[in-house]
Amino acid sequence: MDGENTFKQWKKQCLNKIDFSKKGSVDEAISNIVSCLNDSDNYFTTSSCSGRIILIDGVSDSTDIQKQNCSWLFVTHQKCEKADLCAGLEKSVGDAVLKFEPFVLHVQCKQLEDAQRLHSVAINSGFRNSGLTVGKKGKIITAVRSTHCLEVPLAHRGKVLVDEGYIDFLVGVANQKMEENHRRIERFYDCLQSSFREKIGKCYSEGETKEKSVYKRRRKRTEEHSKRDFCENVKRHTESELEDDFESGLSLFD
Amino acid sequence: MDGENTFKQWKKQCLNKIDFSKKGSVDEAISNIVSCLNDSDNYFTTSSCSGRIILIDGVSDSTDIQKQNCSWLFVTHQKCEKADLCAGLEKSVGDAVLKFEPFVLHVQCKQLEDAQRLHSVAINSGFRNSGLTVGKKGKIITAVRSTHCLEVPLAHRGKVLVDEGYIDFLVGVANQKMEENHRRIERFYDCLQSSFREKIGKCYSEGETKEKSVYKRRRKRTEEHSKRDFCENVKRHTESELEDDFESGLSLFD
Repeated sequence: MDGENTFKQWKKQCLNKIDFSKKGSVDEAISNIVSCLNDSDNYFTTSSCSGRIILIDGVSDSTDIQKQNCSWLFVTHQKCEKADLCAGLEKSVGDAVLKFEPFVLHVQCKQLEDAQRLHSVAINSGFRNSGLTVGKKGKIITAVRSTHCLEVPLAHRGKVLVDEGYIDFLVGVANQKMEENHRRIERFYDCLQSSFREKIGKCYSEGETKEKSVYKRRRKRTEEHSKRDFCENVKRHTESELEDDFESGLSLFD
Repeated sequence: MDGENTFKQWKKQCLNKIDFSKKGSVDEAISNIVSCLNDSDNYFTTSSCSGRIILIDGVSDSTDIQKQNCSWLFVTHQKCEKADLCAGLEKSVGDAVLKFEPFVLHVQCKQLEDAQRLHSVAINSGFRNSGLTVGKKGKIITAVRSTHCLEVPLAHRGKVLVDEGYIDFLVGVANQKMEENHRRIERFYDCLQSSFREKIGKCYSEGETKEKSVYKRRRKRTEEHSKRDFCENVKRHTESELEDDFESGLSLFD
């Protein structure tokens, strides 16, 4: 029972911590997911963000990739407006970059089997860059992640490099990504509840909607193909690992 | 010994497969890493890409996020030139997007301890989105990944939305990312060799260069801080999980 008590202790310590984030609270769009996990005996969340569109101002000509000295010109966890971006860009004095960053979640899990279940939920919901970490002290974390992103330089040394027409188009692209992000969050919550009910890590097995899981889509394609496509199937099976990383659907394997 | 024989069999099957990737061979920049892993008894690589700058043409007004129908207008695993990009853009008939995608590697590992060791190597080298997958049949994969990216829409319905000055600037940004990517690949190879020699999953412990590992940097910061910074340390420890996902260095936690 030592492992169980250790996990309970870790959970208690973590959930009692003060929220030091800039925002100071859990993002609304994912509060149901966070509650669902923290109410379970086998999980607790350690960090999360529902996704955001941010305009950051980095130091020009900096080689520091981590950009620890960026300032925030604008941030939203919802869709954005062209006026917000333009207003933010006016304040730029360095290299302004617009980024879309999707939902991300870190969850500590009691046992490996719990982590695997949550990992399946994440993959089935479209968060295909998700993975586990297993620490030396037995700490098991599932990180829910996606490659779904946008990163667009817009200003250099405070000078805006694009016209308003481009900013308008970009706002549309960023908002589409935010919409897709919210759809995937809903899918994640549905899959999570399904998983808790069935404890088998699958979802959409009953009353399946048109939106099929990635795993089901792959299996269906495999069944439909003829021998001519056998080689193509082998390629897809192994390349699907890289597809999970490259959402452009283009992949390589060795 | 069943597990050992199963792993050997998986490895033999995988390494005997035909390379169906568009390129048909392992990228040169990582051939040493791939060889090093495949020569070891405890690992074999299942897919890899050294990183690339690609210009893809997607279907305009498409809601298919996976963009399975993209065509490649241009691709390189090295730095690119403005002329390449301009030539590619002239061929665009849909929504052209420039992307930088960093080194990615999937490695099947014999035991969890091997996967953890490789995961540490990846994290220490700057591939901070790396993680493990543990399948139901005991298949353990370490995915080496980074958030380091660029994704810039450049044309809509075949019409280029930016001027040549912007393309010029963008080429510089993409090339900087490719340079950083190559530096991290070298660091990964060095760490990997160190790890194989010492079997402790750490690197840079002797003859340490100015480039410190992420873990060492965090520990050093912790030792130097006073009580005033105690709360800041708690925040950093938990927020560092999200920093690993958001390279902008801005993070939230719940």
